[in-house]
Amino acid sequence: MKEKIKISIDLMGGDNAPDKTISGINLFLKRNKNINDCFFYLFGDENIVKKKIEDSNYLNDNYKLIDTKIIVTNELSALSALKKGKGSSMWESISSQNSINADVTLSAGNTGVLLVMSKLILKTMEGIGKPALAGLWPSNDGSNIVLDLGANVECNDKNLVDFSEMGSALHKSLFPEKKAKVALLNIGSEELKGTETLKNAYTKLKILDGLGDFKFNGYIEGNQITSSDSNVIVTDGFTGNVALKTAEGVANFLTKNLKKSLSENIFSKLSILFSYFSLKKFKDKLDPRKYNGAIFLGLNGPVVKSHGGIDALGFSYSIELSYKIAKGNLINIIKNNLENIKKINEKG
Amino acid sequence: MKEKIKISIDLMGGDNAPDKTISGINLFLKRNKNINDCFFYLFGDENIVKKKIEDSNYLNDNYKLIDTKIIVTNELSALSALKKGKGSSMWESISSQNSINADVTLSAGNTGVLLVMSKLILKTMEGIGKPALAGLWPSNDGSNIVLDLGANVECNDKNLVDFSEMGSALHKSLFPEKKAKVALLNIGSEELKGTETLKNAYTKLKILDGLGDFKFNGYIEGNQITSSDSNVIVTDGFTGNVALKTAEGVANFLTKNLKKSLSENIFSKLSILFSYFSLKKFKDKLDPRKYNGAIFLGLNGPVVKSHGGIDALGFSYSIELSYKIAKGNLINIIKNNLENIKKINEKG
Repeated sequence: MKEKIKISIDLMGGDNAPDKTISGINLFLKRNKNINDCFFYLFGDENIVKKKIEDSNYLNDNYKLIDTKIIVTNELSALSALKKGKGSSMWESISSQNSINADVTLSAGNTGVLLVMSKLILKTMEGIGKPALAGLWPSNDGSNIVLDLGANVECNDKNLVDFSEMGSALHKSLFPEKKAKVALLNIGSEELKGTETLKNAYTKLKILDGLGDFKFNGYIEGNQITSSDSNVIVTDGFTGNVALKTAEGVANFLTKNLKKSLSENIFSKLSILFSYFSLKKFKDKLDPRKYNGAIFLGLNGPVVKSHGGIDALGFSYSIELSYKIAKGNLINIIKNNLENIKKINEKG
Repeated sequence: MKEKIKISIDLMGGDNAPDKTISGINLFLKRNKNINDCFFYLFGDENIVKKKIEDSNYLNDNYKLIDTKIIVTNELSALSALKKGKGSSMWESISSQNSINADVTLSAGNTGVLLVMSKLILKTMEGIGKPALAGLWPSNDGSNIVLDLGANVECNDKNLVDFSEMGSALHKSLFPEKKAKVALLNIGSEELKGTETLKNAYTKLKILDGLGDFKFNGYIEGNQITSSDSNVIVTDGFTGNVALKTAEGVANFLTKNLKKSLSENIFSKLSILFSYFSLKKFKDKLDPRKYNGAIFLGLNGPVVKSHGGIDALGFSYSIELSYKIAKGNLINIIKNNLENIKKINEKG
């Protein structure tokens, strides 16, 4: 029998949990009827979730429910969550990678707590200085990977090189048919621009270009994050987070203004009738829910963070992401990449 | 007789100069027939520009042409431009603030060279550590000011406080009817988040809140840059430049995808007929050309940088911006703000 992909899900994290998380699992299974090698470890309070799960149309013999009574709420600081959070649905869903060989953990709970708990339980991978949060951005020909999105406010050049290796491993696990093309986010494409940290990372990545598992494209500016010339965009967590939030803000601002314009008179309202399917396709293609899920990279096991405020459909896409990176052997690819760097460093 | 606002324009900078710059002046004058207190010092090669200016419909007795033979090209580094650039249209248009009392300088030429020349000729204002580039962003109720957009890759807390003072002075000169509301761009709105530099700037701005000429709103995230809650967004030049370019990229990406969707079939094409005026209004309102012009703040005179690649219409809006900040007494307001800080520091 084929080995199953074992996904551990924290049912209790995020807004409207556990309704959202359980509906999300159903939506994922409904959309992916061809996937038959998926098994869920579900963590939550049996009294609350059992009935909902049994009522589900798609969860049958493909799950195991693990009863956890403690819930990590959004109000807790990382420190108090660590004190009180042992045995919580979040804690146990991470620990299951050690105790019952789960392949990946997914939670929509408090980001800070999830990062700290994951680091404590799964430990940082040997050779990695700082773990990082990576996300998917829509691009001209599919999706680009951007990291770090906020795990590390300050980074050195070694961190940025690690992020390049981990980001291209993530790319390989998700899109094995495409070559990873790494670029450093900067404020100009000339070699002279940017901080010392960026210049040092540039020099190191130039050496790895071609030797490692990725092509190095040098610097890009913010307006090229959605381009298809590069598909792994590397930056520190402060800049990455500002870029991500700015992009969200601009997208919301534009669509809000567009909607307003299209509903201002009878002609424009009529036009929506004619363009309904085209506009729907436009909206569907760029629906942020499809890009839901940030991957915490650099630990000995993969952890996926779903947006806390997202709905069931958005949550279902973060399950898809979790399935893909586990199926794509993310952790092994990262380890291989790091071995490569080590060999190159030893030689050079 | 009322004192004229004297605008010095480098006719030779940017793509398609001097055609673009001269057409831009005409467009500005055509659009603003009510403005009758505007006088232009125009700098460029007489052999090239004289005929074009004389053919102009709107430039009559409201200008003086100053013949300059040297042109600062985009290929020059700042250093070689300084060596070769004395007497150029760019150099002379800046110097005119000292020699013939011009109120403001506008150029679409090489940004780096313009910044270095301006600093050298106009000198940094007493009390300011680093000058900064400020720009206008469309917001929910008009325009927000964002700075620094790239003049300073690294900034300390004093720089960020200076930027807050200068940004709110710029706000006052452009929108005297509204109160400036300053916010620091960060990766979370909680006081605990961000770099040490940001935390120190936060503490200092909290003290100035209410005492100075602005309200201090604390931290905001990238998705609030277009909100109307704050209207002066302060950040270092690296982050500001990445945010600006990312916003441009996302806006282009979305409009390109929208156009594609709306032209994919006969129904959606038909819909464009019905929504033509609404879509045009949408496009007009958010036309990036209307937001053209970055203001170099912190020198003893105002310098405006137009986008080099923008067309005549875009250039005409940077003339409007130059006129407004000179008319609004930007430099005096900045000086007053700095006096205020000085007094507060002396007292406290």
